Amino acid sequence: MSCMSDKEPVMVDHLEQGFVHVYTGDGKGKTTAALGLALRALGHGLKTRVIQFMKGNINYGELEVAKRLGGGLEVTQMGRETFVDPKNPDPVDVELARKALDLSRAVIGSGDWDIVILDEVNVAVAFGMIPVEDVLAAVHERPTQVEVVLTGRRAHPSLIEVADLVTEMKLVKHYYDRGIEARTGIEC
Amino acid sequence: MSCMSDKEPVMVDHLEQGFVHVYTGDGKGKTTAALGLALRALGHGLKTRVIQFMKGNINYGELEVAKRLGGGLEVTQMGRETFVDPKNPDPVDVELARKALDLSRAVIGSGDWDIVILDEVNVAVAFGMIPVEDVLAAVHERPTQVEVVLTGRRAHPSLIEVADLVTEMKLVKHYYDRGIEARTGIEC
Repeated sequence: MSCMSDKEPVMVDHLEQGFVHVYTGDGKGKTTAALGLALRALGHGLKTRVIQFMKGNINYGELEVAKRLGGGLEVTQMGRETFVDPKNPDPVDVELARKALDLSRAVIGSGDWDIVILDEVNVAVAFGMIPVEDVLAAVHERPTQVEVVLTGRRAHPSLIEVADLVTEMKLVKHYYDRGIEARTGIEC
Repeated sequence: MSCMSDKEPVMVDHLEQGFVHVYTGDGKGKTTAALGLALRALGHGLKTRVIQFMKGNINYGELEVAKRLGGGLEVTQMGRETFVDPKNPDPVDVELARKALDLSRAVIGSGDWDIVILDEVNVAVAFGMIPVEDVLAAVHERPTQVEVVLTGRRAHPSLIEVADLVTEMKLVKHYYDRGIEARTGIEC
């Protein structure tokens, strides 16, 4: 397989070898890089499942677009809209994060999806809501052809260690620092 | 406008204030972060136009998906598939980069697109193929509601200066360094 080709669309049944990506750091672009990967993959017939940790009831554009894409992209939110206290997460949020991880393992293990994105999972680990060992298990037990993407700030060193690809999205400048609020269509 | 909402899709006519993003650095995730932004924006009814500098004849998945999205995403490749010599770009490539910039200014100025992504434009500037002043002009003359995204390594300091949001995608680890080749569905 190669990226060079004539203009005919190249469809692939599945990846030959799925790798593990980590997108971490304080800058904008972690979740969107994962979503962009999903969009690109879809153009070649690959299917992506997104499981969003600690996100709920927020009207992300990706939820809406997924519906239009006929099954090639599915996004599941497993959290609440309320703020999670990093030092003392509410038991309800902890329970939801654990359920998100159980779902992630089932989805990865099923082999039904070519790419599985565990969005903000790094943060759930950093907040002590889920054990890093269980995320490592999800990664290790994946079928050969499944690509797994772990996003969120403060990625655990063990996840960085086990990943095949790690990008730190480093914040150089952000308009949030000028008091600009999140905008529909850009941040959600 | 706010990201919090009930589960009804929130459509927006246009952004109130368009900002300028720069995604630069050596790590994976620059183009995909821009594409993910496009996907999210589409979920709220915003339209994105992508102009790819120095990319041509490569069967990117985003080209294929764009066709299925009914006009909300359009991708135009303005380059060749051959390698551009950083120290001595072929006049054909220079000409194509200039045309890409002319097109970019026309597309941005038209106000027909909510988000305009100039993919790899930073590299075209870094290679001396187009003057940074002309990219700055494209940014400065944009209609208020147009968001502009500049991607590619080695972003020019003037572009970082003028941008509202800058993320450096820092390479921590990449499977390319283990000799893995680009894979259809992931890198293209």
